[in-house]
Amino acid sequence: MPETPPHPLTLDGSSVLHQMFRFDWPAWRRAGTADRERALSEVTALLGPLEKASEQGHPNQSAVFALLGHKGDLLFVHYRDTIENLARIERDIARTEFGAYLQPQHSYLSIVELGLYESSSKLYAQLASEGIEPYSDQWRQRVEETIARQSAAMSSRLYPAIPETKYLCFYPMDKKRGEHVNWYTVPMANRARMMQDHGLIGRRFAGTVKQVISGSIGLDDWEWGVDLYADNPGVFKQLIYEMRFDEASALYGLFGAFFVGVRLPVADVGNWLALSRNS
Amino acid sequence: MPETPPHPLTLDGSSVLHQMFRFDWPAWRRAGTADRERALSEVTALLGPLEKASEQGHPNQSAVFALLGHKGDLLFVHYRDTIENLARIERDIARTEFGAYLQPQHSYLSIVELGLYESSSKLYAQLASEGIEPYSDQWRQRVEETIARQSAAMSSRLYPAIPETKYLCFYPMDKKRGEHVNWYTVPMANRARMMQDHGLIGRRFAGTVKQVISGSIGLDDWEWGVDLYADNPGVFKQLIYEMRFDEASALYGLFGAFFVGVRLPVADVGNWLALSRNS
Amino acid sequence: MPETPPHPLTLDGSSVLHQMFRFDWPAWRRAGTADRERALSEVTALLGPLEKASEQGHPNQSAVFALLGHKGDLLFVHYRDTIENLARIERDIARTEFGAYLQPQHSYLSIVELGLYESSSKLYAQLASEGIEPYSDQWRQRVEETIARQSAAMSSRLYPAIPETKYLCFYPMDKKRGEHVNWYTVPMANRARMMQDHGLIGRRFAGTVKQVISGSIGLDDWEWGVDLYADNPGVFKQLIYEMRFDEASALYGLFGAFFVGVRLPVADVGNWLALSRNS
Amino acid sequence: MPETPPHPLTLDGSSVLHQMFRFDWPAWRRAGTADRERALSEVTALLGPLEKASEQGHPNQSAVFALLGHKGDLLFVHYRDTIENLARIERDIARTEFGAYLQPQHSYLSIVELGLYESSSKLYAQLASEGIEPYSDQWRQRVEETIARQSAAMSSRLYPAIPETKYLCFYPMDKKRGEHVNWYTVPMANRARMMQDHGLIGRRFAGTVKQVISGSIGLDDWEWGVDLYADNPGVFKQLIYEMRFDEASALYGLFGAFFVGVRLPVADVGNWLALSRNS
Amino acid sequence: MPETPPHPLTLDGSSVLHQMFRFDWPAWRRAGTADRERALSEVTALLGPLEKASEQGHPNQSAVFALLGHKGDLLFVHYRDTIENLARIERDIARTEFGAYLQPQHSYLSIVELGLYESSSKLYAQLASEGIEPYSDQWRQRVEETIARQSAAMSSRLYPAIPETKYLCFYPMDKKRGEHVNWYTVPMANRARMMQDHGLIGRRFAGTVKQVISGSIGLDDWEWGVDLYADNPGVFKQLIYEMRFDEASALYGLFGAFFVGVRLPVADVGNWLALSRNS
Repeated sequence: MPETPPHPLTLDGSSVLHQMFRFDWPAWRRAGTADRERALSEVTALLGPLEKASEQGHPNQSAVFALLGHKGDLLFVHYRDTIENLARIERDIARTEFGAYLQPQHSYLSIVELGLYESSSKLYAQLASEGIEPYSDQWRQRVEETIARQSAAMSSRLYPAIPETKYLCFYPMDKKRGEHVNWYTVPMANRARMMQDHGLIGRRFAGTVKQVISGSIGLDDWEWGVDLYADNPGVFKQLIYEMRFDEASALYGLFGAFFVGVRLPVADVGNWLALSRNS
Repeated sequence: MPETPPHPLTLDGSSVLHQMFRFDWPAWRRAGTADRERALSEVTALLGPLEKASEQGHPNQSAVFALLGHKGDLLFVHYRDTIENLARIERDIARTEFGAYLQPQHSYLSIVELGLYESSSKLYAQLASEGIEPYSDQWRQRVEETIARQSAAMSSRLYPAIPETKYLCFYPMDKKRGEHVNWYTVPMANRARMMQDHGLIGRRFAGTVKQVISGSIGLDDWEWGVDLYADNPGVFKQLIYEMRFDEASALYGLFGAFFVGVRLPVADVGNWLALSRNS
Repeated sequence: MPETPPHPLTLDGSSVLHQMFRFDWPAWRRAGTADRERALSEVTALLGPLEKASEQGHPNQSAVFALLGHKGDLLFVHYRDTIENLARIERDIARTEFGAYLQPQHSYLSIVELGLYESSSKLYAQLASEGIEPYSDQWRQRVEETIARQSAAMSSRLYPAIPETKYLCFYPMDKKRGEHVNWYTVPMANRARMMQDHGLIGRRFAGTVKQVISGSIGLDDWEWGVDLYADNPGVFKQLIYEMRFDEASALYGLFGAFFVGVRLPVADVGNWLALSRNS
Repeated sequence: MPETPPHPLTLDGSSVLHQMFRFDWPAWRRAGTADRERALSEVTALLGPLEKASEQGHPNQSAVFALLGHKGDLLFVHYRDTIENLARIERDIARTEFGAYLQPQHSYLSIVELGLYESSSKLYAQLASEGIEPYSDQWRQRVEETIARQSAAMSSRLYPAIPETKYLCFYPMDKKRGEHVNWYTVPMANRARMMQDHGLIGRRFAGTVKQVISGSIGLDDWEWGVDLYADNPGVFKQLIYEMRFDEASALYGLFGAFFVGVRLPVADVGNWLALSRNS
Repeated sequence: MPETPPHPLTLDGSSVLHQMFRFDWPAWRRAGTADRERALSEVTALLGPLEKASEQGHPNQSAVFALLGHKGDLLFVHYRDTIENLARIERDIARTEFGAYLQPQHSYLSIVELGLYESSSKLYAQLASEGIEPYSDQWRQRVEETIARQSAAMSSRLYPAIPETKYLCFYPMDKKRGEHVNWYTVPMANRARMMQDHGLIGRRFAGTVKQVISGSIGLDDWEWGVDLYADNPGVFKQLIYEMRFDEASALYGLFGAFFVGVRLPVADVGNWLALSRNS
């Protein structure tokens, strides 16, 4: 009997793009009042409708945040049905008059993902017990059926609306592949247990933080992106600090840059960017 | 009986933003005298009142330093009651006329933090002896009571005024999570002992250096930020050199960039930025 | 008898250049309509014919993609018969009027490559059994004959046309040379086995992903470049995730930045770059 | 009896700032002849007197070098009595008309330092034999007396004039704190022995290279800065190559970027920056 | 008897500077035809004579290459008798009108070097057998005699003319100093053997690739720079791939960025930079 696959099945949902921009304040100041107003009115006309989730099976939606620190001034989050539509909104923003004041600093491309550690293990065991060869046609069919069934059941988590909290924390992460400590050589049962323990911590914060996990292997420079949404930004620190001690994070978690933003409703963008009275 | 949590409780205080700017000297020179004076008078009107700690439970306060070297020319330190108010002061500075001469080079976002290694251990042991399950409602309640009591007792350290010393040293740091040497897999009792030894060194410098430790897990790219305030910058070197040999630092400390600044009272900013006579 | 060579023979094909550009939207906006039209018409006249593979033994061909995120706006892929001709097309684009709006962000230089693990092992064994000394004149002649024969047989894979899929994923990679885990000290038979297992995963995706592997040792900063072409970008994530668990990748694979693009036919470049109506 | 301190005593001297600038040749060319002459005459009036060491106990002194390669065009070295006076000369240069052509690329902040491995060991042993508790008042007093006495004796090495050689090599360095190889966990006696062996190599070059070692823990991103001054730049290569094999460097030395400059007397700056005849 | 030195003697030759520039195409386009012609005629008058090796013992020589990819557009290679003369040609180019279109991206400073593993071992053994103490006056004298004799014998390799091939590959490299795998703690006899094996591979390519090895310890950020010159760029890939498996490279070689250029005779620079007809 050949080995069962080492990877859990995953369910894929919305395509996600995070865009971090520095705002060109000196150019904004040099522009005339009429130019600024025209630019604002165009971009808010573009983004305003996208702020509301269009709920026809898939909530294509965008949101704006004021970023903290030198990593940028504005963060745009886009959830879409396809990567092509992410390219399109990126282009749509760039070609506005407002786009000329946006200097790209960072970005992140990913797809909302749910990892099925538990049900994959069960399914693989079941298929093995039936004598079905991994990756055979029959095997694939059964796997696809499972994915289709689970995707339907988890649709609201795969295609989430952007939570309406005041704060966002975004960061990318990897599982370590060191010379001695290597997530990808750990047996699947152990990984499943570690991920379950890891998930328990998240659940303790369920009332205060909403998580959206997206996978980015093959799409961007880290393996996953994590969106945390909360009204109290102190819980970002508390949650991730507690997680740092669980086995999955302590031994295997590698973290990229952290981005923290304060929600900026599209209707308030103009006020936020208003020059000081002095001008 | 389940394990007690591996993480000490922490108390959170002021939200902190460090902003490192390069000053656009060529543009400043191209501007006319009237433009420079108007820009200075606006920004000093904004920052002047913030330099004085407003002591109503929470000292919302900002300070300016002249940075050494190419990492920037000006360092702004902001202590605030919320992260939203940090975003606001960041925006308030950016939108002034003076803001057009400030080029963001670095920044750091964190929250003043006190780690309760000793009292956490005692509390966890006490709760365990009472048979209270970790993370149960009763457990949480007792933890929250402890945090509230300690926060009240340590209020002046959690919400400090910015010390009025001549020099500042700021740097971010991590605890190592190597393949063999990993802070987050060390038992809590050992970590508590190492942190106590580490603290003893700091105490030897108590008369000459004021430390403000802030946590940044989930907020910025390192786990902690450290502000050292002193009138003699030689003690930055001496203190950190001595600490490098203690177990917590020698084995587990990872350090980011170091920023050293000389206090620049807001009233002196104009003089500091005055062009040479030649002009 | 001296050792047989530790390296498999490789077949070399087309020279490849990936160019990632940020598009200077602010300058594009400042230019007049006539300037934009003239620039577009020139660059499409240059690139249009190159989009069609010229099939005279070697398909010299170029393609354009809209890049996702801040890594750039446009990705140009060039397959050529020589590196000199890559330098030439790079220069030909730079010197157009359109070239003034293209800001180079990244690039990658490589040569399409097929590694002959299996037939190299056989050939080396055969030559050893005949008593032919490695690197002797006779040995070289037999190796060259093999390379010539195999190159002719695999010509269409060595000099591929650019697949006409909607999406492209490009990334560079290395084999790890760690202090304990080092691909280049693994015996060739083990490497051959790992590469075969690795290839099996790729074959499971044969219907949905087209791979072009190119070697860049001595040419660019990583050892290989990988082009994946697909109509469904979700398979990039799925394929590379599954590969991450095979021994060759889990232990030895190191990955650089990932670039994802959406096909932009040359005829559509003008529409894609059209300014918003507001302008 | 508690352990003696693990760190040697150090003597601190001049505060040091290295500034690496790219020169804005295109702007220099666009400026008129009169502007260039005025800018040069101002900056040489500022720097000229600083080139001569003012020998009143402390040689406050600056020197200019033409840097090799893209790391910059001009390197300014400043030795001062305080860090505040380094901030001041940095500002004094920036605010000149000439300063508008200087683009900061790198810099380094440090304090000239002599490590007293041998006499620290002796003093610690002596104090221990007298039963004096480390860090007690009596202990501190004895340590301070030693530091004061040694500082007076080594005054000319702590507050050196800038050697008048033709070439300068500057680089920062760390002692490794790896997971297995960690300088800061090596017993002090072993470190003392290694530093002595290391020093012997330097002494073999005493006639041809002048070294100034400065400490930067708590001040900049590496632990030490090294200035090598010589008339023959080939000895930089030879000296550091030989040192690479001693135990302190081979196992524990980590090196940052290397900067090599050719002395540019202030009086020659104008000639060095003269535009070509063509202009 | 003290140990013999762990480092082989090295012979030093020409000083070498590689300069990688991005060409400012947008500014070039904005300049008028007369400006472009004047700039070209000046720079070709400067570089043209340098392209021919001036053979008076030392071939001071420069060459120009068109670089592939975003690392730059033009690569200048300079071989000189002193580092001061490298600073001088760097300045001479920068101050031309043409220099205003050259944006420095990278560079590398080094000195042509021949490592004498074999004859050093013999000499050290001979001197030891004569009872001559390492680094004694007598020892130094004998070493210097050897270096002088060998330098004279290898003069043409120490002061090479720039080979007239069509392609250049340049990269910097280090020998690893890991926590377990450390070149600088390997006994000299083993290093000598590995370097000999390494050299054998190079010799197999002697007919197709010309190597110039230069040392940069104490001069630039890596320990060596490697120039490969060939008419067929495929051999860069083949040679370095084969070398990757030898012990010296597989275990100890660390490689920086790779730069590949196509020869651009000075007389052709104007044609290469000619704007498209459209302009």
